[in-house]
Amino acid sequence: MATAGKVIKCRAAVAWEPNAPLMMEEIEVAPPQEGEIRIKVVATGVCHTDLYHLFEGKDKRGFPTVLGHEGAGVVESVGPGVTDFKPGDKVIPLFISQCGECRFCKYPKTNLCDRSWTSNNYDIMSDPTTRFTCRGQPILQFMGTSTFSEYTVINQIAVAKIHDDAPLDRVCLLGCGIATGYGAAVNTAGVTPGSVCAVFGLGAVGLAAVMGCKNAGASRIFAVDINEQKFKKAKVFGATDFLNPKAYNKPISEVLAEMTNGGVDFSLECVGNTEVMRSALESCVKGWGVSVLVGWTDMKDFSARPIQLISGKTWKGSLFGGFKSKDSVPKLVRDYMSGKIKLDEFITHKMSLEQVNDAINLMKTGECIRSILNISK
Amino acid sequence: MATAGKVIKCRAAVAWEPNAPLMMEEIEVAPPQEGEIRIKVVATGVCHTDLYHLFEGKDKRGFPTVLGHEGAGVVESVGPGVTDFKPGDKVIPLFISQCGECRFCKYPKTNLCDRSWTSNNYDIMSDPTTRFTCRGQPILQFMGTSTFSEYTVINQIAVAKIHDDAPLDRVCLLGCGIATGYGAAVNTAGVTPGSVCAVFGLGAVGLAAVMGCKNAGASRIFAVDINEQKFKKAKVFGATDFLNPKAYNKPISEVLAEMTNGGVDFSLECVGNTEVMRSALESCVKGWGVSVLVGWTDMKDFSARPIQLISGKTWKGSLFGGFKSKDSVPKLVRDYMSGKIKLDEFITHKMSLEQVNDAINLMKTGECIRSILNISK
Repeated sequence: MATAGKVIKCRAAVAWEPNAPLMMEEIEVAPPQEGEIRIKVVATGVCHTDLYHLFEGKDKRGFPTVLGHEGAGVVESVGPGVTDFKPGDKVIPLFISQCGECRFCKYPKTNLCDRSWTSNNYDIMSDPTTRFTCRGQPILQFMGTSTFSEYTVINQIAVAKIHDDAPLDRVCLLGCGIATGYGAAVNTAGVTPGSVCAVFGLGAVGLAAVMGCKNAGASRIFAVDINEQKFKKAKVFGATDFLNPKAYNKPISEVLAEMTNGGVDFSLECVGNTEVMRSALESCVKGWGVSVLVGWTDMKDFSARPIQLISGKTWKGSLFGGFKSKDSVPKLVRDYMSGKIKLDEFITHKMSLEQVNDAINLMKTGECIRSILNISK
Repeated sequence: MATAGKVIKCRAAVAWEPNAPLMMEEIEVAPPQEGEIRIKVVATGVCHTDLYHLFEGKDKRGFPTVLGHEGAGVVESVGPGVTDFKPGDKVIPLFISQCGECRFCKYPKTNLCDRSWTSNNYDIMSDPTTRFTCRGQPILQFMGTSTFSEYTVINQIAVAKIHDDAPLDRVCLLGCGIATGYGAAVNTAGVTPGSVCAVFGLGAVGLAAVMGCKNAGASRIFAVDINEQKFKKAKVFGATDFLNPKAYNKPISEVLAEMTNGGVDFSLECVGNTEVMRSALESCVKGWGVSVLVGWTDMKDFSARPIQLISGKTWKGSLFGGFKSKDSVPKLVRDYMSGKIKLDEFITHKMSLEQVNDAINLMKTGECIRSILNISK
């Protein structure tokens, strides 16, 4: 393309500081370096992890930054050494990379690539630099992705090439929330046919977990939330029973134990609340119950009584649903296109990049499931 | 035998109240009822769970009782309907039963029989009665076993028939501690060949866990204890590295991470201390590390930061090493007799039933690994 090799000036929503609205800015996006890909972002979801970082994180490093990690786009240009991608390819940026060479990539049952943002804990790319500048200063790339921008640059180990016909304004959701919840059920929990499941928290991640339980063949899926407005949507994804913990004068784990002859086989915590994590574990049946932490928080300890594990329950967790990112995202896109998984039903709002602060507010108040920002044509 | 069908008067160590020495008493042991077996106890180990109940439990119910749950003996007589046992059979009482019919017995990966003491939480037999009286009052049967007595009565679902040549004053240890630690490694953790393990706490259970790691093929086994006197014994069971957490000015999880390129594959907590449980989890490698709660406590919550599980670690636990009791104890006895597992090396003291309070004191001060009480010839 005509822009290849040149700095691109484009629009981005910059987070200059915590606890403040994002600012629409013109930023400069440098050309991709060795092994890197510059992507024109077409659409992006707004995920609670963006919100967490911006408003709820106690760690105040990592600013200024461009948030957004649930995007989809088209390759604009590639840096030296990139052979698997070409301009025009449809892609999804990955906040967990898959280098294919580290001991974690080589181990079949984890997706925590050692070259990932999550391993190195810097809000940039796969090496500690950034391709963004604004008003003369470097801007960090949140989770290595930064999809609240018309263009971004990402190392090829953190980009998935997807089907040419994939609708980018929907499959972008596979870049985080939907893969996270769905994979937590099918990969991490390993939900089995005929099992009884409970999903705590019915945001996008929780609803995707419900869908995962359903697709894995669960016979009964309890949808648990204190906001009963969410139950109708949970039914769409396959939930069979609906519980509002506030409607009972005893712990929801006891309610579930009575309704299921001792507890559920699998429970998934999709809130990111340590008390709910405890309830989810306590809701499992002894002997073989598995509870999975899906919701993200790192403010507080989670806890339980030792007998909860001594009695044979298992407590697990995962990032990005345990999916090896580059291998799995293209398959998930095909699963959507073939009707095996739903995406459209998660989308409650469509907006422009300029409306990003409205989208964040919708999430804060719980009024949306997922808002999609259309970034470029 | 001449005593069949009659009440037997015999010696037993009775715990009349918490926090008091056991009292040697003459008790009456009623004949076995439908499905029950009366056993002449030949030898018994003294396990920390006895101590926990007597001195450390906040729950003050369950007295008067006869403690002891790590015994071995000979069938004296059987009640109506018992066909798999006959007088003279060598047996090990089981504190976890295996009825073979409940949904837990039928599930391959749990040993938590629904008819067990642990399911019903009363310190008696498999039904809420007792066959013991003393000075005119009923005496409870701790953990359904009560091996600190010359005779005890147990339901056949909680008795394992073992090899006729088994030395009862050694294989009695398979009734609790050794099976618990060994099984936690080979069953619950599922230690794999070539893996790196850490065992926290080097009492009998911890040493048995070391032995389990070794037999499962671990390439490196860290033995962790604040009492360095334990290291010599740990080496006997297969430990390769020895760490005293008090010898470092940083958390032992960091020490282990540095020594193992990010953490161990499997960790086993064999202390029953919630802070050690946390350390054991934190000592695991991300992605696939598995930490197992083996040590018993129910006084306090255990806890950790959610990222510990979100990063792909698994927290598990088990009772009795996850062994299905009736099926497994006879096999473990054969494994001892064929040299596959060690038992003699756990035994540091041999005493009489009358010396039970001395044995308890040795355990309180950490001076013994296991004391064996010889009860009858």
